[in-house]
Parts: sequence; C-alpha cells; structure tokens
Amino acid sequence: MFDNKETTNIQQLGEFGLIDHLTKNIKIKQPTTIKGVGDDAAVLDYAGKKILVSTDMLLEGIHFDLAYTPLKHLGYKAVQVNLSDIYAMNGTATQVTISLGLSSKFPLEAVEELYEGIYLACEKFDVDIVGGDTTASKQGLVISVTALGYADENDVVYRNTAEEGDLLCVSGDLGGAYTGLQLLEREKLVYLENPNIQPDLEGKDYIIERQLKPEARRDIIELLKSIDVKPTAMIDVSDGLASEILHICKQSNKGCNLYEEKIPLDPMTYETAREFNLDPTVCALSGGEDYELLFTVKQSDYEKIKFKMDFTIIGHITEASAGCNLITKSGTVHALKAQGWNAFTPPNA
Amino acid sequence: MFDNKETTNIQQLGEFGLIDHLTKNIKIKQPTTIKGVGDDAAVLDYAGKKILVSTDMLLEGIHFDLAYTPLKHLGYKAVQVNLSDIYAMNGTATQVTISLGLSSKFPLEAVEELYEGIYLACEKFDVDIVGGDTTASKQGLVISVTALGYADENDVVYRNTAEEGDLLCVSGDLGGAYTGLQLLEREKLVYLENPNIQPDLEGKDYIIERQLKPEARRDIIELLKSIDVKPTAMIDVSDGLASEILHICKQSNKGCNLYEEKIPLDPMTYETAREFNLDPTVCALSGGEDYELLFTVKQSDYEKIKFKMDFTIIGHITEASAGCNLITKSGTVHALKAQGWNAFTPPNA
Repeated sequence: MFDNKETTNIQQLGEFGLIDHLTKNIKIKQPTTIKGVGDDAAVLDYAGKKILVSTDMLLEGIHFDLAYTPLKHLGYKAVQVNLSDIYAMNGTATQVTISLGLSSKFPLEAVEELYEGIYLACEKFDVDIVGGDTTASKQGLVISVTALGYADENDVVYRNTAEEGDLLCVSGDLGGAYTGLQLLEREKLVYLENPNIQPDLEGKDYIIERQLKPEARRDIIELLKSIDVKPTAMIDVSDGLASEILHICKQSNKGCNLYEEKIPLDPMTYETAREFNLDPTVCALSGGEDYELLFTVKQSDYEKIKFKMDFTIIGHITEASAGCNLITKSGTVHALKAQGWNAFTPPNA
Repeated sequence: MFDNKETTNIQQLGEFGLIDHLTKNIKIKQPTTIKGVGDDAAVLDYAGKKILVSTDMLLEGIHFDLAYTPLKHLGYKAVQVNLSDIYAMNGTATQVTISLGLSSKFPLEAVEELYEGIYLACEKFDVDIVGGDTTASKQGLVISVTALGYADENDVVYRNTAEEGDLLCVSGDLGGAYTGLQLLEREKLVYLENPNIQPDLEGKDYIIERQLKPEARRDIIELLKSIDVKPTAMIDVSDGLASEILHICKQSNKGCNLYEEKIPLDPMTYETAREFNLDPTVCALSGGEDYELLFTVKQSDYEKIKFKMDFTIIGHITEASAGCNLITKSGTVHALKAQGWNAFTPPNA
C-alpha cells in the first residue's frame, strides 16, 4: 500500500516515540476528561469521585510464550498488569473488561484455564469483570484488558508532580521478572534441542513467579494511606526502573540522583543474573515487568517511612539542570538511560 | 497441552455460547457496579451520573481484510462500533481508549492513516481519546477499543426491559453492510485472479460505505429525546437483526412478531443481494454490521413516532409463550432464528 512512498520504520521510533507521535495532536474536549493519555490511567470526573481507566494488550509471541506460560498464570497476569496502573494512580481498582482473540485450535478447556487465572486475580483484588469481547483469532492468542477504578480528587497521584528534594522510593525488589524470563527462555531452548531433558528450574521459584505471576502492589497503596503519606508522584515499574524514573523526571521537569547500592535486588535475582553473565543492576534498570510501584515522597515524611520494610529509598529528586544520574557503587556518576523493554524490539527477539 | 484430555471445540459453542459459558460464574461485588456483562455496555455508579463502558476488538483476517479496507476507514469504524454500544444504552459517549498491535511490516504512514480515521470519528462524535496501548504484533493488525460514556440513571435503556405490546423499531436500513462485503469479497477474488482487471464497484458506493465506514446512530438518540420518547429496550445491530431481536426478547422474557415486509432495505441492498442470489431479507436478518439501533417503544408513544422517517416500526412484542416469529410477505409464520455473524465461523471463512 505504501510501496511507492518514502516510509518511516516503526522500530526506529520505538514504543514511546510512536505513542508520542500518535497522541501529540489529541485535543481534550470533554469537561469530564481530567487527564487523558500520558499517565498510567485516564482520569475522568463524574461528580465527586474521579474515575480511573487503564488498558493493556498482551499478544502471543510478543508478551508471552505459551511454551512455558501456564494459561492460568497468563490470565492472572493480564489482570494484574492493568490493576497495577490503577494503583499507580493511588486509586482503588474496581472493574475490568476482558477482550480475547482466540485461535480455533484453542480448546474450551484452555480458555477456561485462562479465565481461572482472570477470576482468581479479580477475586483476590475485589474487582468486577464488567464487559469484554471474545472473538476468533487467526493469529494466536490476544488479550486486551481495560481496568477501571476511582479515587478522591485529592488522592490521585500523577507522574508529573515530583518536587526537588523529594525522596525516590520503590516497593519490593527489581530485576526478578527479567532474570526469570532468561531462565525460562534458556530451558525452552534446552527442551527444544532435547525433549527428554527436564527443565532445570529447581530452587528458582521466586524469580519464575515474578515473571509468570506478578502481583499488583495494592498493599503499598494501603500501607502509605495507613501511615498518612501521600506520594508526590507515582508510576508502576513495567518497563524497567530507569525508564520509569525518567518518566517521572521528564514529566515533572526535574532531575534525580539514583544510588545503585540502594536498588533492591533479591539474592536469587542477583545470583541468576550472574549465571547469565548479566549485570544485576542492569536487569533492575532495564528488565521491566516487575510491577512494583516507584514513587516520590516529601522529605518531611522521612520519619514516617524510614523503617518500612516494604519499600526502599533509592535516591532523590533534584532540579532539572542537574540531570538524571545513576551513582554507581564505586561512586562514578552516569547519565541514567532508558533501555527499557520495548515491544517493538523485545530483548529476546 | 490438552492432547490427552477430552476437549470441547469452541466453534461448536459459538461466540455467545462461549461468552455465556465464561461469564456465568461472575459475581458482582462492587457496589459501584450496576450492570456488568450482558448488555451493550457496563453501567457503573459513581454518584449522580452512571458511567457506561464498552469494548470491542477487531482482528485482521477476522473482522477486516486489508486487501480492500482503507486504513482510515478501519480506524473510523473501530471507534464507531464502540460508540454504537454507548448510544445503544441511550447514553452520551465521551471517551475511548485505543490499543493497537502492529506488525513490524507496518510503516508509520500506515499507522497514521489508521489514526486519521480514529481522530475523525472522535472529532465528529465529540469523543476524547484518553488512553491505550501500542505494541508490536507478530500476527497482523489488532485493534482494541474501549468506549466510555454517561447517562442519567433514569435515561439508561437496557436490553431486558421490553414489555408486551411495545412497538419494535429499527433505525435506517439493514443488510447493506453485508451485501457490501459480498461485493468487496467478489472483487478481491477477481483481482487475485487477474490483477489487470479494475474492481467493478461502480454505483455501489452506498453499500460499500455501509461495510467500510458505518456511522453510529447518535442522531437517533437525540431525535428520540427531542420528541420525548424513551425506548423501553434497546440494542445496536452488530450481529444481524434476528440475533438482536432475540437478545431483547430472551433477556426481557418476551416473544415478538416481526413483519418481513416492514424490514427496511435500501434498493441497492435489494438489487445487490439478488445479483448474488441471496435473499435480501436474510441479508438483513443475518448479515450484521449495520450498526443501526433496534429499540422498543410503548404503544402510547405511537402518535409521536409514526411520521418519523429515520426509523421504521417492524413489529411488536408479545408474551413469551407466543414465541419469536417472522411473518413473511406471504403471511407464513416462521420461528425467528439467529444465524447472526459469528466470529468463530464467519460467513466468508
């Protein structure tokens, strides 16, 4: 169709470049639209409560490999990654819609297994399934989820409101989902070469689960509320720590110092990264899919958060002109770069 | 994965069977969920206005064929089919989210063309794009749209509230999208056999447009409001008239008489169906994709609607025990059957 024209390759743009390109001309017209494209969820004002809406699409061969992804886990994960966006707005997730494109080779039992995971995630997080679409697919499994939730106007936390001096915090630990993926990919190759060899995943449950069955951090939202701390900015870690920090800094027009030694790594993540000759810090910075919450809090809240085990202070926000810096363990200062997961050039493609 | 188990084929279930199967165990828990799965859109209560949410997924090779579908039209249609669901609730559509899965062979210009249509539809219907997801696809183009809107509690019109004696009405005319599709499919085959032959679509603009560029009937919603008529039940015609009538009757626990001679057909639809040796009535009943509104109104509203040119009274609602009947032009009575468009066994598969 475009054979005779000069064309631009999508891969060169990357996911964020493409999104920027496609959305820069959007004009908001509805008075009900408080926040559209550009954050984890859209914010809509329908009197009183703000509605939060977020959507994510998972495609076979891009986001998951059915060779090692149990369908129940996949259904669970498809919901979690969407709820994670609602929590990242400091909201309460309340509904999802589920659209599925299913290959005709898929037996009903497979779809049921997928839905078991979907139900389990919804059950656990008190979320209603309120709609969706189910269709045949000639192209493999397609899962599109939209999550809805709400928050009081004063509770909504955006990405663009970090202030100089704020502490940069992240929940849980990072890089596990990515090292888990490396392990699964390796065992798949071993299996394809010799189907008699059993996968060697012994003792690696934690990072395998980080990849296959992430948990959205509603508990962090609840914890912060319980200690009366409202983050000044927040985002969920889906594309890697570096990419998410840069989103907050860029949108807030601020810089940051991130301390490598503070980045939380599980020992199994560290050890497995080493097995693969990967730098564990790079796995945390660029691996993605950890679905932890990255947020900034006022320095004056330090006393309230300093003993909290569920998240770690990893740096602080600076003025924009200072840039976004990674201070390594040896004290060297590097410019922080986003080499986050990019669906158009996945690391294992 | 299921090689050694007894499996059930999805095709046997059909789309509605599968949806019933998958959703029958859903338990609504959120007090904010007024209506979940089972209507054109979910209804959520966030104080005052009711929120309407609906989602639809379009897959290459199932819902569209890029051989004859201009991308701009496709983008336009992807939005329209979702807005249609919001109007079918008697609501005001206000936002959409757009998720795209794009093959790497897709140049940016192609995505821009797709988005041009998306923007045009949003512009025309005063709808904001408030989110989405864009990813690579190994499998061809995937479009998933979620539409949101609102309505006053008393204005929302469901499918399950038709009453005995109500008049059955449909907007516009039917069967055009399906006969347009037959034409496009025929010309594609001719072209594949001999690329030197130009497509013969002369004078067929109307039905081609019905297929490629449907318009959601916001005007009907506005017209009904302006004459102070609130439908008792409503649904949009996406799967064919028969299928939609049966949805209203089944969910309202009622029967109906539908008069074949009253079914609105455009002369071009009639003529083209004949060219293909198709029964024009069957095209209207089972063809689908017309995106007209099918609704029921109280008999007492007859004086208000009798001269309205934008819709046609095609029958009336009866008690359930009378069944759902098609009264043919010759006066014979047939049980109405849904042979509507089924994504798992498309008519042209």
